[in-house]
Amino acid sequence: MNILLVYAHPEPRSLNGSLKAFTIKRLEAAGHSVQISDLYAMNWKAQLDADDSIQRRPGERFDPSLDSRHAYENGLQSLDIVREQEKLLWADAVILQFPLWWFSMPAILKGWVERVYAYGFAYGVGEHSDSHWGDRYGEGTLAGKRAMLVVTAGGWEPHYSPRGINGPIDDLLFPIHHGILYYPGFDILPPFVVYRTGKIDETRYAAICEQLGKRLDELFTTAPIPFRPQNAGAYEIPALTLRPEIAPGRTGFGVHVGDDA
Amino acid sequence: MNILLVYAHPEPRSLNGSLKAFTIKRLEAAGHSVQISDLYAMNWKAQLDADDSIQRRPGERFDPSLDSRHAYENGLQSLDIVREQEKLLWADAVILQFPLWWFSMPAILKGWVERVYAYGFAYGVGEHSDSHWGDRYGEGTLAGKRAMLVVTAGGWEPHYSPRGINGPIDDLLFPIHHGILYYPGFDILPPFVVYRTGKIDETRYAAICEQLGKRLDELFTTAPIPFRPQNAGAYEIPALTLRPEIAPGRTGFGVHVGDDA
Repeated sequence: MNILLVYAHPEPRSLNGSLKAFTIKRLEAAGHSVQISDLYAMNWKAQLDADDSIQRRPGERFDPSLDSRHAYENGLQSLDIVREQEKLLWADAVILQFPLWWFSMPAILKGWVERVYAYGFAYGVGEHSDSHWGDRYGEGTLAGKRAMLVVTAGGWEPHYSPRGINGPIDDLLFPIHHGILYYPGFDILPPFVVYRTGKIDETRYAAICEQLGKRLDELFTTAPIPFRPQNAGAYEIPALTLRPEIAPGRTGFGVHVGDDA
Repeated sequence: MNILLVYAHPEPRSLNGSLKAFTIKRLEAAGHSVQISDLYAMNWKAQLDADDSIQRRPGERFDPSLDSRHAYENGLQSLDIVREQEKLLWADAVILQFPLWWFSMPAILKGWVERVYAYGFAYGVGEHSDSHWGDRYGEGTLAGKRAMLVVTAGGWEPHYSPRGINGPIDDLLFPIHHGILYYPGFDILPPFVVYRTGKIDETRYAAICEQLGKRLDELFTTAPIPFRPQNAGAYEIPALTLRPEIAPGRTGFGVHVGDDA
């Protein structure tokens, strides 16, 4: 199968650099084709701006959505964006690997999302009607592909537990899992998270590699997180609130995961 | 009072640009001093990397935390970082204004946080003991200052409601409110959020300005969100999980807000 690894760490001689090398080796040994987007090594442009199109809409002020749509529809996107979209279309599975910085992805990776996720490619896809609010949240350009996060965190695991001070890791990752990956159609696998990265000796590193290796071996068989599809009846349209009889009385990110896992 | 507006939108002739101009005018008319960090206009460097120090630790591989600490302690930080830290220290209140892109802040603003929030300045502050786990979450360098988000979103308000498909806006903003702003000591005011930005006519714009103006007038009197301080007894140390008798049985971001608002 084809696997894209989008990787965001500035230092190759880091835990992340080692895990990246391990991942590539493991996937290739299993017969997969692997492409890497090493964002720091590529000197990836992080900020979305008017230069993301090679020819702007004449006479208009810059509008992030409308200019993205214009560039995407007319073949006027910056080439670095086109190349990443092609990798996404090529891939059967995408792994985003990054250190958790201030409780989210590094800026350079956020900028990859903002720039590569063009209007017409990752959003603004599909028709809107009384029963269908665009192809998103379970449908879309990237439907049928799988995505998984590989995340490192300096903090302790209990700090990210259900009552931990940093907030539960599942909730911290929800805007990425659901908002960035499920939105254009990916099936989302449970994340692989390494905690307390400042305290890793050889024994722990070996254990981490064994666990990560297992997750990579099972990349195409692990059950995805059962997020609820937008257009399959669970949500009122156009309010896009969960119908009263679904997860009755509950609120928060967790209600968008079905119980029928 | 002194107010810092950190602003992240690429187009001055946008709703965000208009609201920025309105904000500055309103605050100055009330007698405040205002500084602006207009990140796109400053061509702010978004990615954290080894160039953030003017002289690296000799012979060491780049480590985001340790190099930040070395640079901060030894006066070796890049000047653009130093200037932003000085603005934060000068400010009595900080406003972060940005469009919600993919359910979080734009990459350029995330990179401002990552680079300006040096080790020793925004984290790695204070002693660790059995009763005190560093000066963070309610204590720290920026304690006594106020922070508020001004956010624009293209989506409809019900999509961000407690059972809305995008997730509740309070939960989406929690990693910024609690993880980025409360962490180094800010008191956090309720956010000002504008929805459905594609559908704003003159009447709605006037109403938005009236509401925003009121929030700016009350910047120093509005009650902050009552997040629970880390070192005041609500959390076990070092697990940093909420004690069983606090918000018993509850989990998720919401448990870190006290009921005694």
